[in-house]
Amino acid sequence: MKLGLALSVQHLPDEPQPARFREHVEQVRLARAAGFASVWASQHYLSDPFTYFQPIPTLARVAAEAEGMTLGTGVLLLPLRHPVEVAEEIATLDVIADGRLVFGVGLGYRDVENRAMGQDPKTRVGRLVEGLEVIERLWTGEPVTYAGRHFTLADVRISTRPVQRPRPPIWLAANSDGGVRRAARLADAWLMNPHTTLATLERQQALFHATRRELGRPPAAEVPLVKECYVAPETATAFAEAAAFLEAKYRVYRSWEQDRALPAGERWSPSFEELARDRFVIGDPVRVAEEIARYRERLGVTTLIVRLQWPGMEQAAVLRSIRLLGEKVLPRFA
Amino acid sequence: MKLGLALSVQHLPDEPQPARFREHVEQVRLARAAGFASVWASQHYLSDPFTYFQPIPTLARVAAEAEGMTLGTGVLLLPLRHPVEVAEEIATLDVIADGRLVFGVGLGYRDVENRAMGQDPKTRVGRLVEGLEVIERLWTGEPVTYAGRHFTLADVRISTRPVQRPRPPIWLAANSDGGVRRAARLADAWLMNPHTTLATLERQQALFHATRRELGRPPAAEVPLVKECYVAPETATAFAEAAAFLEAKYRVYRSWEQDRALPAGERWSPSFEELARDRFVIGDPVRVAEEIARYRERLGVTTLIVRLQWPGMEQAAVLRSIRLLGEKVLPRFA
Repeated sequence: MKLGLALSVQHLPDEPQPARFREHVEQVRLARAAGFASVWASQHYLSDPFTYFQPIPTLARVAAEAEGMTLGTGVLLLPLRHPVEVAEEIATLDVIADGRLVFGVGLGYRDVENRAMGQDPKTRVGRLVEGLEVIERLWTGEPVTYAGRHFTLADVRISTRPVQRPRPPIWLAANSDGGVRRAARLADAWLMNPHTTLATLERQQALFHATRRELGRPPAAEVPLVKECYVAPETATAFAEAAAFLEAKYRVYRSWEQDRALPAGERWSPSFEELARDRFVIGDPVRVAEEIARYRERLGVTTLIVRLQWPGMEQAAVLRSIRLLGEKVLPRFA
Repeated sequence: MKLGLALSVQHLPDEPQPARFREHVEQVRLARAAGFASVWASQHYLSDPFTYFQPIPTLARVAAEAEGMTLGTGVLLLPLRHPVEVAEEIATLDVIADGRLVFGVGLGYRDVENRAMGQDPKTRVGRLVEGLEVIERLWTGEPVTYAGRHFTLADVRISTRPVQRPRPPIWLAANSDGGVRRAARLADAWLMNPHTTLATLERQQALFHATRRELGRPPAAEVPLVKECYVAPETATAFAEAAAFLEAKYRVYRSWEQDRALPAGERWSPSFEELARDRFVIGDPVRVAEEIARYRERLGVTTLIVRLQWPGMEQAAVLRSIRLLGEKVLPRFA
């Protein structure tokens, strides 16, 4: 099982943002030394009350410290942008990553983002499906003519193809059962989200595998999972320290109505202990390793992407989590 | 007078693109050591027959080697993208550049680019003007409501403001007299293009200054000029070596109808010698310094941005130009 670092690119607006960015650079440097295999950056626009570094420039910058590592958008909100533009930007990023880019995409769930871009939120799924089709065809390097509901192209050939042939892996994030089936149909992997409990992920994974079989598609080569994670020498301290930041973060998710995008039967408890159970990976290295082993066993995870920081959290705690994961947890999964 | 390096992000499709990208990283490292003050990346989509690295990830990556230098988009084709998205990406880039970003924008002239993005090329000017207005307002960090012909925003507040207050400098590229007047009205500086002769630039600069005065705007603090440049120990060799690459490059410009975007009275001669006269800066260090001095004297250039490479040209020649500019030319302008 490989470990990935999800950069937590949201910060408090009062903090000096360049200093916060330099901390991410330092996190990547340490993660590489600690044996992490990949670095990820996610996307939101209009992320009030937090700031948000956009993923493409963020990944391009940290590539300088990530030699040999995989870079991944985790995830880019594809419906919000034009596929010709995304195809060219992501191809450039694959060049910068020397052919080690994973193109992670998602639907998004915040209507304000779609509306700010002048789009009807109801076109989200259509734009995702057409966008992926257009990008895959553009990446062949051949001229593309396409007449969709959302995008129309006449003889369009992009500048730069990705380095990877035929193209970078496409990982699709999804919360709902419909989204999981879509990932089975359109993507190389379903990127499992950090907001859902183990039981639901297990059920949805069965759905993912069954859908692949129905469609006659091969099993996904990668089983990636994103998790909120905090490692400290003592489990009690880990919970106490993580709680404040994670609670604030999930309050904002609620205000964004992320919880309305959860799979059927899932809800977020107002109690942190209940919220954390079967959902967050928090504790001393032994407990964290046991938790990860449980997810790996039940879901067959091949890449675990950990988010180790939430807005306002200081750098020392992030670096400690990275170090403890590298020194005490990763060796158990070698 | 400060010197800027315009990365030549176009290459031949058969060349290994990651190796070509790594050469740009090396160019920036050397340029910084040689005393260059800034690094620039321009933009095209669908750049057949050449590849093209997109400017935002390119600048973000080379920022790692550009400590203390200014980064600039030179230029981003603003009408092709949505201003909310651009405001967030450029703010992130200003964070990465630690507040040393110049936001250079242009109109573009290739209808194929607009059409590929689903836009009527005739909306180009309107999208540029509205786009700049929206971005400037978004960068205040306040919620923006805007009802334009091309963009409509209701209470939109971006995630991350640029580091610079009130905002990064906006430099507008323009070829036509109308474009120059627009730059006087909307931007902090007119970015003078490399395709036009000195006489025309001189005439248009008078127009720029006169328009600023009419509008009651202060004189521009920066007078930036982009130039094709090639430096070698001997002038004859410099011309012979540069000619092949520049001729091929300008043949493609013609096929893109860039020459139709030239100011009135300007045309490109098919003879390289004539094309180069009063337009390209080529020669041994003494001749190059004299040429630069002439442009500085007649136009009051404060930042000269040199493009030292064209598709197919080998790295050694680029590094030599950078080194000769730093060692033999720049000291004359200290």
